[in-house]
Amino acid sequence: MTLNKDLRIGRHAILLLLSDQPAEQMKKLEQSNWKGCVGKVGSMDAHKVVAAIETAAKKNGIIQTDVYRESHALYHAIIEALHGVTRGQVQLGSILRTVGLTFAVLRGNPYINEQEGEWIAVSLYGTIGAPVKGSEHETIGLGINHI
Amino acid sequence: MTLNKDLRIGRHAILLLLSDQPAEQMKKLEQSNWKGCVGKVGSMDAHKVVAAIETAAKKNGIIQTDVYRESHALYHAIIEALHGVTRGQVQLGSILRTVGLTFAVLRGNPYINEQEGEWIAVSLYGTIGAPVKGSEHETIGLGINHI
Amino acid sequence: MTLNKDLRIGRHAILLLLSDQPAEQMKKLEQSNWKGCVGKVGSMDAHKVVAAIETAAKKNGIIQTDVYRESHALYHAIIEALHGVTRGQVQLGSILRTVGLTFAVLRGNPYINEQEGEWIAVSLYGTIGAPVKGSEHETIGLGINHI
Amino acid sequence: MTLNKDLRIGRHAILLLLSDQPAEQMKKLEQSNWKGCVGKVGSMDAHKVVAAIETAAKKNGIIQTDVYRESHALYHAIIEALHGVTRGQVQLGSILRTVGLTFAVLRGNPYINEQEGEWIAVSLYGTIGAPVKGSEHETIGLGINHI
Amino acid sequence: MTLNKDLRIGRHAILLLLSDQPAEQMKKLEQSNWKGCVGKVGSMDAHKVVAAIETAAKKNGIIQTDVYRESHALYHAIIEALHGVTRGQVQLGSILRTVGLTFAVLRGNPYINEQEGEWIAVSLYGTIGAPVKGSEHETIGLGINHI
Amino acid sequence: MTLNKDLRIGRHAILLLLSDQPAEQMKKLEQSNWKGCVGKVGSMDAHKVVAAIETAAKKNGIIQTDVYRESHALYHAIIEALHGVTRGQVQLGSILRTVGLTFAVLRGNPYINEQEGEWIAVSLYGTIGAPVKGSEHETIGLGINHI
Ligand SMILES: [Mg+2]
Ligand SMILES: [Mg+2]
Ligand SMILES: [Mg+2]
Ligand SMILES: [Mg+2]
Ligand SMILES: [Mg+2]
Ligand SMILES: [Mg+2]
Repeated sequence: MTLNKDLRIGRHAILLLLSDQPAEQMKKLEQSNWKGCVGKVGSMDAHKVVAAIETAAKKNGIIQTDVYRESHALYHAIIEALHGVTRGQVQLGSILRTVGLTFAVLRGNPYINEQEGEWIAVSLYGTIGAPVKGSEHETIGLGINHI
Repeated sequence: MTLNKDLRIGRHAILLLLSDQPAEQMKKLEQSNWKGCVGKVGSMDAHKVVAAIETAAKKNGIIQTDVYRESHALYHAIIEALHGVTRGQVQLGSILRTVGLTFAVLRGNPYINEQEGEWIAVSLYGTIGAPVKGSEHETIGLGINHI
Repeated sequence: MTLNKDLRIGRHAILLLLSDQPAEQMKKLEQSNWKGCVGKVGSMDAHKVVAAIETAAKKNGIIQTDVYRESHALYHAIIEALHGVTRGQVQLGSILRTVGLTFAVLRGNPYINEQEGEWIAVSLYGTIGAPVKGSEHETIGLGINHI
Repeated sequence: MTLNKDLRIGRHAILLLLSDQPAEQMKKLEQSNWKGCVGKVGSMDAHKVVAAIETAAKKNGIIQTDVYRESHALYHAIIEALHGVTRGQVQLGSILRTVGLTFAVLRGNPYINEQEGEWIAVSLYGTIGAPVKGSEHETIGLGINHI
Repeated sequence: MTLNKDLRIGRHAILLLLSDQPAEQMKKLEQSNWKGCVGKVGSMDAHKVVAAIETAAKKNGIIQTDVYRESHALYHAIIEALHGVTRGQVQLGSILRTVGLTFAVLRGNPYINEQEGEWIAVSLYGTIGAPVKGSEHETIGLGINHI
Repeated sequence: MTLNKDLRIGRHAILLLLSDQPAEQMKKLEQSNWKGCVGKVGSMDAHKVVAAIETAAKKNGIIQTDVYRESHALYHAIIEALHGVTRGQVQLGSILRTVGLTFAVLRGNPYINEQEGEWIAVSLYGTIGAPVKGSEHETIGLGINHI
C-alpha cells in the first residue's frame, strides 16, 4: 500500500501552485498519466470556491459529470483543503475575511500497488485576510480522497 | 501592506519541505536574511508535534526562549498548521491516526512595508493515516502569524 | 436514573422517521403519553431547518410558546441533531450543499425515575448533497435535552 | 444518480441497530446482496470505538484488509458517524463522558445507476453520558462514503 | 421572558471570579436567594476541570446528586464555558497547553417571569498557556443552561 | 514573563463591560497608560460584530489603520472572543440566533517584563438567543493576542 515516492499526488498538486508556470507543469504531469487542472478563484463566499473547483474539474474531464461518487469524492477533498485555508471555521465573508486562491485538482494512483486505484488531490494556495487590499497573509490547503 | 512577491514566507516554508535538499535550501534562505529551521517528527500525539517544533525553533534561535510573546506567536502558528494536517479535529491517536511529518519554521518580513515587522510561518508536510505501515496519504499545513 | 427500555425517546423519534406511516406511528405514541410531531423541510439554509422545527413544535403544542426555557431546550436539541446531519460544520449552502429532511420532535420522560421529568428529542433523516438532483446521500441526526 | 428507495443504505444500517434482532435482520440483508456486520463497543476512548468497528469490518470481510482505499473509505465513514454521536467535539473521556454503542457496517450500491458502484454506511446507536451508571441519554450517528 | 437586570446570572457568576473576595461575594448572593459555589482547578486534562466543577456543585448542594437531568444541565454548561476558555478545540494537554482556573457555579432564576424557573451558570477565569511558568495569558468562559 | 497582578488586561477588559459606567472606567484605565475603547453592537451577522469592533478600534486609535500586523492581531483576538460567545460554531443568523453585545478593546503590557511588549484584549458581553425579544441568555467572550 506504500506511497510511490515519484507519484506523491499531494506534493505534485502543491508544487503546481507554487510553480511559476502552472500550465506547463500541468502538461508534464499529463504526460506521466496524471489528469488534472489548475484555476483561480477569489471570493468572500466559501461556496463560490467550492463551485469554481467543481466546475473546473468537470469541464476539464477530471471527474465524470454524471457519476455522483466522483463528485462526492471531489467535494470532500475540497472541504478538507478548505480546512487548511480557514484553520478552524470553514467560513469566509461571514466572519469578515476573503480569499484569493489558485487551485489544482489532480487525479491518479499515488501508490505502488495498482489495486489502490485512483485518488484525487485538491490543493489551494493564495492569500486570506480582511476585505482590504494588502491586509492578508498566505494560506494553503490540501485534501486527498480515493475516487 | 502588500506582500513582497519574492519574500512570500509561506511559499518559502512549504518549498523547503517539498525540496529534495531542505538543509541546503534553508542555507540559501538564511543568506537572504531569513531565519529558519527544518525538522522531522512522527507521532500519534499532537502535543509531541507541537513540542518538537517549539524545541527546534528555540534551539535554532528562531524565537527567543525567555520572551512569551514569541512563544505565543509560534504556538498559534503551529496550531493553525495542524488544522490543515488534521482537517476538522486537531486530534491524532485519540481518533486512531498517526502522522509522519517534516516541518519548517521561517521568520522574516514578507511585506514591502518595513513597518510590518517580522512574521513567522510554520509549514508541515508528510503523511497521515492508520497506525499501519502504508495506510496513509499525504497531508499539509501552514500557519502564519505576526511575531 | 436508568433509561426505561420501552420509553427510549431517541429510538422512538428515529423510528418515526424511518416508518412508512409516520403520522400513524405518531398517533400510537400519543396514546402512550408522548407528545410529538413530524414534518418536512428542504433547504440550503440551516436557519430555515431550525425555524421549520421550532414552528412545528410550537404549533403542535409540543413546547410552550411563551416560556423561553422550553424554546432553549428545543433549540439546543435541534443544533445537536444538525451536528449529525452536517458532520463537522453546521453549514449547508455556505459550503454548497443542501438537505431534504423529515424531522420529528418528541417529548416525555424516558427514565424509570419520575423525578427525571420531561425530555425532548429532535430527530432528522433525509439526504444531503450538492444542489443537483440525485447528487446526495442519506444523513441522520439526533439531539436530546432535558426540558 | 437517484437513490433507490428500497436500497437506502443508511436507513437499513440504522434499522439494524434499532431492531430487536439485529443478527437476523443482517441475514435478510445479506440475502439481498448487502454485505454487513453488527457489533457492540463501550468505551471512554474514541479510538477504541474506531478500532472495534474497523476490526469487525475486516474480520467479517466487509472491507479488504490489504487495500488502503477501503480502509480509508471506512475510516472517514466512522469519523462522520462519530460526529452525530458526539455533536461538537469528537471526544469522549477527555471531556469526561463515555459511550455504550451498537454499530453496523453495511456495504452495497444504494443508487439506481449501477455506475455508482459500492458505498459503505456506518451507523452507531446507544448511550452517551457521564461515567456513572444511568447518567446518560441516547445518541445516534451515521456516516456514508463511496468505497 | 425578559432578563431581570438585577438578576443577571452570568454577570454575577463572572463578577464572583473577578472579585478579590469571592467567598464573601458568594455569601451576599446566597442572601439574595442564589445557590452557588466557587473553586479552583489547575490541569492539563479537560476532564479534570469538568470533574472538579461537578464535584464542587454536588458537594455544595447546587445540583442534586441522584437526578440525571441536573447533572446533564450542569455538564452542558461546563462544556460551553470551556469553549470560551479553549477557543476552538476543547483540548488542553493534547495540544500542549495547561490551565489554572477559578470557577463559579450559580443557580437561580434570572428572568422576570417566574415560569422560567431555575437556570445554572458556570463561569471560568484564569490563565491558559504552555506548561512553563509565566508562558500564559488570561482566559474566560461562561456557560448558561436551564435546569 | 509573569503576569502583573495589577495589569491583568483580560480582567480589566471584562470589568469594563460589567461596570455600570464603562466610559468612566475607561478613563481611569487611560490614566494608567492603557489604550482602549468600548462600544455596542447587535446583529445576526457575525461579520458585523467583527466590523463594529475593528472600526471602533481604528477610530479610537487603539490600532494603527495602515499596519496590517495590528489588524491581524486584533482580528484573531476578536475571533477568539467570538468563540466564547458562540460556544461551538462561530455562527449567528445562519443558525437562527442573534446577539446584543457590548465590547471593549484594551491595549497595553500585562506582564512584569517590559520585553513582553504590547498585547491586545477583546472582551464581549451581552445576550444571545432567538430573534425574539427576551428569548435569550447572557454570553461572554475574551480574546487576547500579542500586538
Ligand atoms: Mg483521509
Ligand atoms: Mg491570520
Ligand atoms: Mg447531552
Ligand atoms: Mg458525504
Ligand atoms: Mg443556550
Ligand atoms: Mg493565545
